[in-house]
Amino acid sequence: MKRIYNFSPGPATLPESVLRKAQAEFLDYGGTGLSVTEISHRSDTFRRIVENAEGNMREVMGIPDAYRVLFLQGGASLQFAMVPLNLFGRSRVADYVDTGRWSQKAILEARRYGKVNIVASSEDQDYRSIPVVRTDRLSPDAAYVHITMNNTIHGTRYSELPNTTAPLVTDMSSCILSERCDVSKFGLIYAGAQKNMGLAGLTVVIIRDDLTHYCLDTTPTMLRYSTHVESCSLFNTPPCFAVYFAGLMFEWIKDRGGISAMEDRNREKASRLYDFLDSSGLYAGIAAKHDRSMMNITFRLPSDDLTDRFVREAESQGLTALKGHRSIGGVRASLYNAMPLEGVQRLIEFMDFFEKTHSKS
Amino acid sequence: MKRIYNFSPGPATLPESVLRKAQAEFLDYGGTGLSVTEISHRSDTFRRIVENAEGNMREVMGIPDAYRVLFLQGGASLQFAMVPLNLFGRSRVADYVDTGRWSQKAILEARRYGKVNIVASSEDQDYRSIPVVRTDRLSPDAAYVHITMNNTIHGTRYSELPNTTAPLVTDMSSCILSERCDVSKFGLIYAGAQKNMGLAGLTVVIIRDDLTHYCLDTTPTMLRYSTHVESCSLFNTPPCFAVYFAGLMFEWIKDRGGISAMEDRNREKASRLYDFLDSSGLYAGIAAKHDRSMMNITFRLPSDDLTDRFVREAESQGLTALKGHRSIGGVRASLYNAMPLEGVQRLIEFMDFFEKTHSKS
Repeated sequence: MKRIYNFSPGPATLPESVLRKAQAEFLDYGGTGLSVTEISHRSDTFRRIVENAEGNMREVMGIPDAYRVLFLQGGASLQFAMVPLNLFGRSRVADYVDTGRWSQKAILEARRYGKVNIVASSEDQDYRSIPVVRTDRLSPDAAYVHITMNNTIHGTRYSELPNTTAPLVTDMSSCILSERCDVSKFGLIYAGAQKNMGLAGLTVVIIRDDLTHYCLDTTPTMLRYSTHVESCSLFNTPPCFAVYFAGLMFEWIKDRGGISAMEDRNREKASRLYDFLDSSGLYAGIAAKHDRSMMNITFRLPSDDLTDRFVREAESQGLTALKGHRSIGGVRASLYNAMPLEGVQRLIEFMDFFEKTHSKS
Repeated sequence: MKRIYNFSPGPATLPESVLRKAQAEFLDYGGTGLSVTEISHRSDTFRRIVENAEGNMREVMGIPDAYRVLFLQGGASLQFAMVPLNLFGRSRVADYVDTGRWSQKAILEARRYGKVNIVASSEDQDYRSIPVVRTDRLSPDAAYVHITMNNTIHGTRYSELPNTTAPLVTDMSSCILSERCDVSKFGLIYAGAQKNMGLAGLTVVIIRDDLTHYCLDTTPTMLRYSTHVESCSLFNTPPCFAVYFAGLMFEWIKDRGGISAMEDRNREKASRLYDFLDSSGLYAGIAAKHDRSMMNITFRLPSDDLTDRFVREAESQGLTALKGHRSIGGVRASLYNAMPLEGVQRLIEFMDFFEKTHSKS
């Protein structure tokens, strides 16, 4: 079997050792004689899986005691509704920063339930940067301020958090666990698991205790954070295999030196690729330098035709899923935690080769 | 590796051949060099997985063209809200039949959004039977009539459908694909996958086209059936591995002779166990004979003490998860499609042995 380097934005590359562990015990979990997919979520065995996953995630991220960790379903797209439904009980106003498509989706959904102020936007920069959030633009009565921490499409990321008095809520789907993070700066963090936490179908929410009691009356039971806080994520049958797999991912991070080691490696991987981009005459980075993502590196070639050729030839070299998002085109290399440095090195070598070949032709 | 017989009500026993197939290709799906868990949901590869799964499910269940098949998240518990949110646009009234805990949960959730009439209940029978639904009790303006097709806790099931003019909506979580089903009799069918369709974290909805356009204005985007109809279940990242696994389950059913063969086997399995129960002096079936479930067989022993001993000794014999639901006690043997006849035979032999041992003591 020949594994390839997968630069997909998500579902994304996963650590081979974790995949092999899940594979090895797929028919017999811990000597139970059962697949982990067959075990009742009400059993002690599964309760331990949930508790261990939560414990390891808390340890790795340094999550303070005042925060709950919830294992939910529905993806970030469902959080776009759950956040306003659960926090507009504080006040029916929220501030949102617009950094592209995912922020916009969050904004549209919040508007169903209250007043949304867009306090900053980089639309006039084609979302190639993160806008400065001016304190005097913030609503004094905001229930929360929402940001999209890392923007997969344009390849931007916040390197500095806006200064807010209202609780800061963030979509961390594409950067959670990729770098050091002071959870206490946030009121609520949500993230789909399919980038740095394993399988699609699991969503992790980290919420400060005091924010779990403000849901609007019409909120469905399953969409209330309080439902899942009270039942420790076992209100109904959770996505058991994805929770188990996330547990393996948290252990893998611990074994590799924790989140600091992850950040160091991610910084090294991204730097190498950005340095190459900046020294190249063919490729041009899309995101503004000071707001560059470490997870999703976006760049352009001089023409669509050349871009297509690049993506196709890379694919034939075992470097897959490099096509940029359809809304902006270009190339996107997603370098989540599980992408090894060798994969990035192979990509750079290919880019170098492609550039030289192209310059000659 | 010694596999055991797992009578869990869900997550539940799965076919060993399906588990082995998923295990074998876990690191390299179809020669892609990628795990199926790593493949973008926007790729042709994954689109084919979804289309094949839907195609096979349609074939196996004989789903008419006028129905959409949706692969969603959140379990039946989220459907308890999605059904009223999406159908109360027709009229703000619905009729519900109360056959126990799961019906009650559905009723409570629907009451958030409109008027709910309980048109029949077997509460006065301790839910040991399915109540007759008198036509003159039905609301003339009901948006729909809701029934819980199979009741896992008490072990009851509808052998005959109520006669309604409003669309019939049913929770089929614990009996879907277990017996022949005329889909055209229903407006909407929903089911969690973790019994007869594989992994927890996937919910299948089968909905008649004309019912997809009545959602209430406040319904979150992710909770609108129309969202998922328009995007063919790819609005956002679906629970990819669970969708893939459900596809394997549908193929397994086809390979084993389709739904008729499943029903025949399930009838044989359930009959053997019920016949033994009825001939025994120690065990007493809980459900009324004419409403007995083929999936969840419930019975009692003379004392709680003896019940505990039964469950414990069965466990030590490789017959696991037989404890009845905490709300009613007793014993419950769940015999989903993947439970082989040999498992039922082993259970009967153990019950016989236990009865004889007990009678002597």
